[in-house]
Amino acid sequence: MTVNITLPDCSYDIHINRLKTIQLNAKVVVVTNPTISALHLDYLLLKIEAKEVSVVTIPDGEQYKTMDTILTILDHCFTQKLNRKSVLIAFGGGVIGDMTGFAASIYQRGIDFIQIPTTLLSQVDASVGGKTGINNKFGKNLIGAFHQPIAVFIDPYFLSTLPKREFGAGVAEIIKMAVCFNNDFFVWLENNRLDSVENTAIAIQKSVQTKAWVVGQDEKEQGIRAALNYGHTFGHVIENETQYETYLHGEAVGIGMVMANNLAVKVGLMKQEEAIRIKNLLDSYDIPTTYGIKDVEDFYNHFFLDKKSLDDKIKFIVPVGIGDCKITDEISKNDVIEILKGFQK
Amino acid sequence: MTVNITLPDCSYDIHINRLKTIQLNAKVVVVTNPTISALHLDYLLLKIEAKEVSVVTIPDGEQYKTMDTILTILDHCFTQKLNRKSVLIAFGGGVIGDMTGFAASIYQRGIDFIQIPTTLLSQVDASVGGKTGINNKFGKNLIGAFHQPIAVFIDPYFLSTLPKREFGAGVAEIIKMAVCFNNDFFVWLENNRLDSVENTAIAIQKSVQTKAWVVGQDEKEQGIRAALNYGHTFGHVIENETQYETYLHGEAVGIGMVMANNLAVKVGLMKQEEAIRIKNLLDSYDIPTTYGIKDVEDFYNHFFLDKKSLDDKIKFIVPVGIGDCKITDEISKNDVIEILKGFQK
Repeated sequence: MTVNITLPDCSYDIHINRLKTIQLNAKVVVVTNPTISALHLDYLLLKIEAKEVSVVTIPDGEQYKTMDTILTILDHCFTQKLNRKSVLIAFGGGVIGDMTGFAASIYQRGIDFIQIPTTLLSQVDASVGGKTGINNKFGKNLIGAFHQPIAVFIDPYFLSTLPKREFGAGVAEIIKMAVCFNNDFFVWLENNRLDSVENTAIAIQKSVQTKAWVVGQDEKEQGIRAALNYGHTFGHVIENETQYETYLHGEAVGIGMVMANNLAVKVGLMKQEEAIRIKNLLDSYDIPTTYGIKDVEDFYNHFFLDKKSLDDKIKFIVPVGIGDCKITDEISKNDVIEILKGFQK
Repeated sequence: MTVNITLPDCSYDIHINRLKTIQLNAKVVVVTNPTISALHLDYLLLKIEAKEVSVVTIPDGEQYKTMDTILTILDHCFTQKLNRKSVLIAFGGGVIGDMTGFAASIYQRGIDFIQIPTTLLSQVDASVGGKTGINNKFGKNLIGAFHQPIAVFIDPYFLSTLPKREFGAGVAEIIKMAVCFNNDFFVWLENNRLDSVENTAIAIQKSVQTKAWVVGQDEKEQGIRAALNYGHTFGHVIENETQYETYLHGEAVGIGMVMANNLAVKVGLMKQEEAIRIKNLLDSYDIPTTYGIKDVEDFYNHFFLDKKSLDDKIKFIVPVGIGDCKITDEISKNDVIEILKGFQK
């Protein structure tokens, strides 16, 4: 199946099925990591027909999402004498996608790139939106570009080698999309387990369509697109408190969603039973939904780490029932503290 | 006077006159170099009304147009907690403009920037087109982005402190624009000396309008925009042979224009008298028009340095009379060698 993404100045297709031959009348560089390379690179290379194909393998992990790695990718491209018609292919998870897209956006002022995401999270999330970038000492994704791929190929069969926890992190992202924007999709998820390639492909398609609808309305994240950060305000603090070691990003966001739901119930935007349905769905995929907060005030103050002062208002993204959400800075500290106390150790 | 630049996805004004107050409801970082800072920064700062203004000074010269310098600019922006509404201001010549634009294009996936070019070359050239970038060991401007400024302020009074040779390099660029695209402008240049602020402002306006017309038709340099490289094929070899030490870029391009003109006469695209008129105009501004080639074959082979093989065709941009030009790869080696021999030591 194919989902078309149409944005003001570009349009591309997301193909969701077993990878077919990719024909490119151009030089191609595949950017991948050692894990995916060992598992699936031979298969991918069989599927690429191009003028020349070379591969650059970069280390795995968020800590390598740096300008140094970008320069490694670019050096490879220069050595291979890529020109403005050449194409980069991102073959891996979100880190590979973000970096390959960014490298493509600045190589000779921008060349084309293709996404072949291999994790569930990157298939449903990074494949739509055109956000590319790297981290630095000031934070995550602070340097980058908006650069849309010319095509995305999502092959759910690559997920057969994905560790269970990483699969769960991707499911959390899918559930997030449904809760924020699509009640029918949420009900579908309650009635259909993502334990077959077929169902997973359908869930990917529905997620991608939902995200495409959001991004199509707000490509540069001036408004509604920010709602995709549902669960992130809490999730970031959890990641930070646990030094990014305990939870995968999707897991921390999963816990954050539960916190945001409780807040929504507290301020009357969601029924208790809806919050329970979301938690049950997360639990059914063994996605963590609890967290032991040591110090509630500390946790709250963490929200202000990237703010200038404690007078700044914190924006929360809270669901309004299942299938809708709102961005609000009118939630009182008392209500937030009350919710956090429910997670106290 | 004001020239409006309208591109498919953006529009901005180039203001050519004494700098007036710039009002910005945002945090601002001015990027400049020590030379311009010493001469004109106090004046500029008087003219900026913004939430906060800070200045980052980067070393002067093409050799500092590197990713390291970009990271220096970005670090300053992060330290000043710039957000997505903040604005960078490029205050200097082409190097400052290229780097500030590139830094702005990748800071938090792109923020606005303003150009205040202070050299004649950057006023007529870098202020239109949105090309930003840096050099690396593989060549010049190989990493970068297309990122349009939100406004350009050209103050011809800044030119009062510009060294005479640099002024001449800018005039070479202006003459290039007239020869390639605008016969009337060329005749105007023959009849009006750029020895007053008024005349210089008019020449800047005409150049900018001409370049805007070219870029408007071909923003990403797929076709006609490449004609702006008239004089560059030869000029690059001259810069290379002299290790970028003997000539300013505009000067090397000036010599390259004379070579390209001779080639155009040789293949019957231009009258001898037209080539002489162009050379006379360049000479009248003391722009170099001669060069001593040591080895003609060596010089010719230099064209292929960035090509895969000597079988590749070299594209020459040759004027067709004065006011028009064409891009051609159908000029024989013999004709080129013949022309080069006229410049032999």
